[in-house]
Amino acid sequence: MFDLATYLSRVKETVETYLDKRLSADDGASARLIEAMRYSLFVGGKRIRPLLVFAAADAVRGMNGQPAAKSAILPETRVGAAVECIHTYSLIHDDLPAMDDDDLRRGKPTCHKAFDEATAILAGDALLNLGFQLLVEGIVDHGMELAHAARSIGDATGIGGMVTGQMLDLESVHHEPTPQLVEEIHRNKTGAFLRACVVAGGQAAGATRQQAEYLATFGECIGLAFQIIDDLLDLVETTEQLGKRSHKDVEQNKVTYPAVFGIEESRAKAADLTQRAEQSLVPFGEHATALRAAADLILKRHY
Amino acid sequence: MFDLATYLSRVKETVETYLDKRLSADDGASARLIEAMRYSLFVGGKRIRPLLVFAAADAVRGMNGQPAAKSAILPETRVGAAVECIHTYSLIHDDLPAMDDDDLRRGKPTCHKAFDEATAILAGDALLNLGFQLLVEGIVDHGMELAHAARSIGDATGIGGMVTGQMLDLESVHHEPTPQLVEEIHRNKTGAFLRACVVAGGQAAGATRQQAEYLATFGECIGLAFQIIDDLLDLVETTEQLGKRSHKDVEQNKVTYPAVFGIEESRAKAADLTQRAEQSLVPFGEHATALRAAADLILKRHY
Repeated sequence: MFDLATYLSRVKETVETYLDKRLSADDGASARLIEAMRYSLFVGGKRIRPLLVFAAADAVRGMNGQPAAKSAILPETRVGAAVECIHTYSLIHDDLPAMDDDDLRRGKPTCHKAFDEATAILAGDALLNLGFQLLVEGIVDHGMELAHAARSIGDATGIGGMVTGQMLDLESVHHEPTPQLVEEIHRNKTGAFLRACVVAGGQAAGATRQQAEYLATFGECIGLAFQIIDDLLDLVETTEQLGKRSHKDVEQNKVTYPAVFGIEESRAKAADLTQRAEQSLVPFGEHATALRAAADLILKRHY
Repeated sequence: MFDLATYLSRVKETVETYLDKRLSADDGASARLIEAMRYSLFVGGKRIRPLLVFAAADAVRGMNGQPAAKSAILPETRVGAAVECIHTYSLIHDDLPAMDDDDLRRGKPTCHKAFDEATAILAGDALLNLGFQLLVEGIVDHGMELAHAARSIGDATGIGGMVTGQMLDLESVHHEPTPQLVEEIHRNKTGAFLRACVVAGGQAAGATRQQAEYLATFGECIGLAFQIIDDLLDLVETTEQLGKRSHKDVEQNKVTYPAVFGIEESRAKAADLTQRAEQSLVPFGEHATALRAAADLILKRHY
């Protein structure tokens, strides 16, 4: 019997142990910089992105009849650690006073509140840089498959995705909320990166082009559904429940799914995307068990 | 007869044409974000880092009797464009109000002055991300040699170098200026990255381990000398001559070479490093002509 809690805690431990070692060994670095990076990295994330990386790698290996990778450091450990660094950098920078100006993240003071603005900017920069360092090290150790994974991630986190999403999000307060705009923001801001985590996990395990396409469809659907649910949660939950400031989308006049489509239609959209995500996993059969469970975890949050 | 002006203008044109195309084609991205990235990228840099990449690649190819690379996009074009993106990101973020708070850069308003703070932070993030995207694309197209080049760069720009250097620099205003501290700051802040540009250029052309070591020594010496000269220039030149605010080190109580060693000893140090840099190129013979000329250009600025 597959148990997601066990699976997720193994992923978390693997990735966190790896990052912990990696961020202790650097003697030459500024102690305060390392402290700020560790603060935001270990403040208690759900590790959804590494989970998707590991689960996608397992689906591909299972379908291709490969044994589990057995090098000292798994390819997906480096990819999982890398995406968590990049995700954490994006949270630190999004929270800055010049951006969303948030004081709380994961129930704790945001990085620039716990340290200061300059340190938060640099800790974010260093985490983005570290994410790519881990990917490049992975390429050197594991070979070209990791280069394709690194490319999928890099294409989703820069102007082709996450940074553009944040920029459009900041600009959106001046724009009429249209279905096109809300979809463009969310596809860039969260969707592209979640999709890339799934695809990169598969590529790290040697996915064929066809398998990468199935994974891309799955990733795209859960990425969009994830954001719709996030918008709904912001509307209905309290700050305490969320661990970050709630109702801020409305306060800041942000363009969200419920604002454009209403609550009921947003729920229906999320349910439809969830179903399409499940269908895209059919070719992987039982090997996608972890991936299906991950989707459940992500998409069946209370809303 | 080798002519550096011709060589440098070829490097500039190659890298700038490549970056210009790269930053026009992205239809989905926010127009304002692309505009801010292009503003800082094309505001008129000297392109010293790409120059070092190309010159080091030529030295290695010459010494190994290889013909010049002839793929549609040279490996050093991608590496040169990547280091220029990463360098530009570091300038944008260093100039931010929370950091060095500078209004002028290369004689023009800094990115956050020409746009706004949020846009400047995101433009910097996107340029760092783009730098690594170009390196990863290079690995996919040109193979593993580029992975070693990417590793050299990534190790020099994060907590193992540039970001740490900026953090120590910000912290230095609270510390007694000692020779150890000033050397640590400069090794991290500028030295590590300049060294990495030289090494990565060589690796992109397939440098042996021994060749990479010669290049590392060369890069380290010119990197440190470069920073000493920068400190001296800040002291003796006007804002107009520099194109950025002068005398700011003294105003901000920054730890610099002249502050610690005095002007005369700083000059002697720079001269000694320049000589050591030249010696490290002896094994390359005539093939290092471009590299020697690049060192001259960098180190014989008026001071």
